[in-house]
Amino acid sequence: MSELRFDPIRRRWSIIATERRFRPHEFKRPTTDAPGDVGACPFEYGKEVATPGEIFAIAKGPRQPNGPGWQVRVVANKFPALRVEGELSREAVGMFDRVSGVGAHEVIVETPDHNRPMADMSAEEIALVFRAWRERLLDLRRDIRIRYVLIFKNHGREAGASLHHPHSQLIATPIIPTYLVEELNVAREHWAHKERCIFCDLIRQEQAFADRVALETEAFVLLEPFAASFPFETWLLPKDHCHDFALCSDQLLDNLARLVRDFLRRIRTLLDDPPYNFVLHTAPSPHPRPGQPRYWTTIEYDYHWHLEFIPRITHIAGFEWGSGFNINPTPPEEAARFLREVTVDEDR
Amino acid sequence: MSELRFDPIRRRWSIIATERRFRPHEFKRPTTDAPGDVGACPFEYGKEVATPGEIFAIAKGPRQPNGPGWQVRVVANKFPALRVEGELSREAVGMFDRVSGVGAHEVIVETPDHNRPMADMSAEEIALVFRAWRERLLDLRRDIRIRYVLIFKNHGREAGASLHHPHSQLIATPIIPTYLVEELNVAREHWAHKERCIFCDLIRQEQAFADRVALETEAFVLLEPFAASFPFETWLLPKDHCHDFALCSDQLLDNLARLVRDFLRRIRTLLDDPPYNFVLHTAPSPHPRPGQPRYWTTIEYDYHWHLEFIPRITHIAGFEWGSGFNINPTPPEEAARFLREVTVDEDR
Repeated sequence: MSELRFDPIRRRWSIIATERRFRPHEFKRPTTDAPGDVGACPFEYGKEVATPGEIFAIAKGPRQPNGPGWQVRVVANKFPALRVEGELSREAVGMFDRVSGVGAHEVIVETPDHNRPMADMSAEEIALVFRAWRERLLDLRRDIRIRYVLIFKNHGREAGASLHHPHSQLIATPIIPTYLVEELNVAREHWAHKERCIFCDLIRQEQAFADRVALETEAFVLLEPFAASFPFETWLLPKDHCHDFALCSDQLLDNLARLVRDFLRRIRTLLDDPPYNFVLHTAPSPHPRPGQPRYWTTIEYDYHWHLEFIPRITHIAGFEWGSGFNINPTPPEEAARFLREVTVDEDR
Repeated sequence: MSELRFDPIRRRWSIIATERRFRPHEFKRPTTDAPGDVGACPFEYGKEVATPGEIFAIAKGPRQPNGPGWQVRVVANKFPALRVEGELSREAVGMFDRVSGVGAHEVIVETPDHNRPMADMSAEEIALVFRAWRERLLDLRRDIRIRYVLIFKNHGREAGASLHHPHSQLIATPIIPTYLVEELNVAREHWAHKERCIFCDLIRQEQAFADRVALETEAFVLLEPFAASFPFETWLLPKDHCHDFALCSDQLLDNLARLVRDFLRRIRTLLDDPPYNFVLHTAPSPHPRPGQPRYWTTIEYDYHWHLEFIPRITHIAGFEWGSGFNINPTPPEEAARFLREVTVDEDR
């Protein structure tokens, strides 16, 4: 069974994933991305039995589970980092912490079409993906062992996508990831002192400065963060305060989908279809933790869900790993201007 | 001029490096590493005038600066992320922080031989590299604007090395990098409660557990961390408590060099010459900061310098970027066993 381990010096968790174990000679070097062999794709439409059992699906009409007819389909990851089965244990190992590898690892197959990346989908199709994210969040939160559900999308092999077929993933964990804890602490402290959300402050300030705001809809602002770690790192934030993606209405997700489609097409034109990661930052599961019930009851005030986007066009070198800060050769103000001004070739 | 920017939500710095500015179409995709064209190498022996002015060198006999005869040579980076020239300013920008890009960015050319990676150097040659690191640390610390000197080595293009000729780099910054601040805070708190160094505790515990210790010399322990983020992530720690790499004796550096040579040859055999990063973690500059003089006066007790090694054989995907924790498919106990048991082909 996999396990989660905590490093008391760096204060970070790792998943030691024994089910994905590699021996040294098995590590493969990065290879170039290729559309892949449709016939060998485990997500191929019409061959639904090739995947582990279906967990959730969106379809236009009536259909049988594990059969065709779906528009978006969620299945268990074949090589899961964490599993739903098993008992949750938390124990000390000398000065360290170990938690059993209980959780979930799912794949959201975003479209039946092997060769239809998100930038080519319609806004309606992208909205269905976001609805699947929302439904899986709501369902997994009912498991009181789970503290956080991390949803992310890897596009392109250099961004970590091992399969070409458009998909996103979720990993539900019995701990709250370090970066989320840090953001939650910052947002909570800000709220405690000022009774204002730090993300709402950020949105208002950046709308006033204007030079880092790349795109805006009635419900969302898309901006290049002031201290961007990477060229064209981008945050998408809902303008109205909301801590939890799972509370989004269909209408809000439709609006988000239109913005994401527009953004991805601009990025593809500007950076020539770069590999990228999308990561959803949202509130942790609302279950009170033993001894800390108040921690979560105030959560609606002191977090603000958002999407973070990173194009993987620069190398992460020793400097970045050793310091936690990055050298970014593109000022975010310039990236925002490029995004605003680019003309997208709609015929692509 | 470049600038350092602080994100108040993620509490991390970035260098916005305007001197390395790229326009969108200039981003290049990762390409395969190749020995490169010796004639085009800016570090070629005998063509010392091709580099920016020499800052430091180690030589066997008398020689002229910027001429041949050197064994290790330190020069300014041609495209520096930070520069020594200019005034250090610290200012607020709305809710953000900005610091002018004052600092230093240097290249340590480790050998005159274009095709002699560190794993092929003798222990004596590697020791000279570490002596150059030490001398640059001591020299740069005299600049009271500088808070930290980060020394690192990128080997292979996928690890961020843009040049094949063996070299390491240093970036001296007017702030302390976030990861160092976190380690310092943890170590200081541990000391405050227990009057023990947390790294010394770690060494003693891991020597007792034994299964994660891969190699050991009279002065150093080389271990796979319990919560390793990556397969074969490795820490090298001096057994005797010492906060500062710059205090190492020649004898200690000789001992370290023998261990690093042995380790790099084992890694090369096990993982087929992987790209890798080495990062030195050492104490910050000892200058008192205005208003916080005591912060640094206790530093000799509450930090413990060490080297961190990461082979770049797995992809960093959206999960890792979004959470700060990693999925590691190789338990560190297994990695330690592989390192202990591998037979190195000395004829390679």
